Amino acid sequence: MTLLSEDEIRLKLDELIGWFYSETQIVKDFKLKDFKEAMVFVNKVADIAELLNHHPDILLYGWNKVKISISTHSEGGITRRDFELAEKIESLI
Amino acid sequence: MTLLSEDEIRLKLDELIGWFYSETQIVKDFKLKDFKEAMVFVNKVADIAELLNHHPDILLYGWNKVKISISTHSEGGITRRDFELAEKIESLI
Repeated sequence: MTLLSEDEIRLKLDELIGWFYSETQIVKDFKLKDFKEAMVFVNKVADIAELLNHHPDILLYGWNKVKISISTHSEGGITRRDFELAEKIESLI
Repeated sequence: MTLLSEDEIRLKLDELIGWFYSETQIVKDFKLKDFKEAMVFVNKVADIAELLNHHPDILLYGWNKVKISISTHSEGGITRRDFELAEKIESLI
C-alpha cells in the first residue's frame, strides 16, 4: 500500500465534507442528537471497519460527539484505504 | 453533587485497579482481545452509562484498546457519581 503525497491527500480531502488532515491521520468530528444516537453511529462505523478490515480510532465524547481518526499505521501515514473508509463512513450520514 | 477532595479521590482510587487521576478525570485503559471484543466492551459501558445517566468519554484506539475517562462536567471535577460509574464498569471484567 503506497502512502499518498500531501497533494494527493489535499485533493481527496476536497471531495469530503468536514474531514481534515492532522498528524498522519484524517479526522472528522460528528455531532449526534444524544448519547444513544452517538452509540448507534459508533456501531455502524465499527461494522464498516470490520467489513473493510481497517480500523479507525473512535472517540465518543461530550455525550453526543464522535471523533473518527483514520490512518494506515503499518505505513505510518495516509493511503487509499483510509479514504475508502472515510467515504464509507460518509455514506452513513 | 459535591466535588471530592484530592485525598478522597486518592483513597477511592486505591480501591480500584488500574484507574488513575488525570486533569479532573478518572481514567483507565483496557486492552481487549481484538476490535470485536473491544466493541462488545464499549457497548456494555454505554449501557451502564445510560442506566446511570452518567456518560464517560470512550476512546476505542489501536484496534483493541479502550480508554474510559470519567468526570462530572457540571461540577468541573470528580464526584461520588464518577466512582459509581467506574465501579460498575469494573464489574464487567
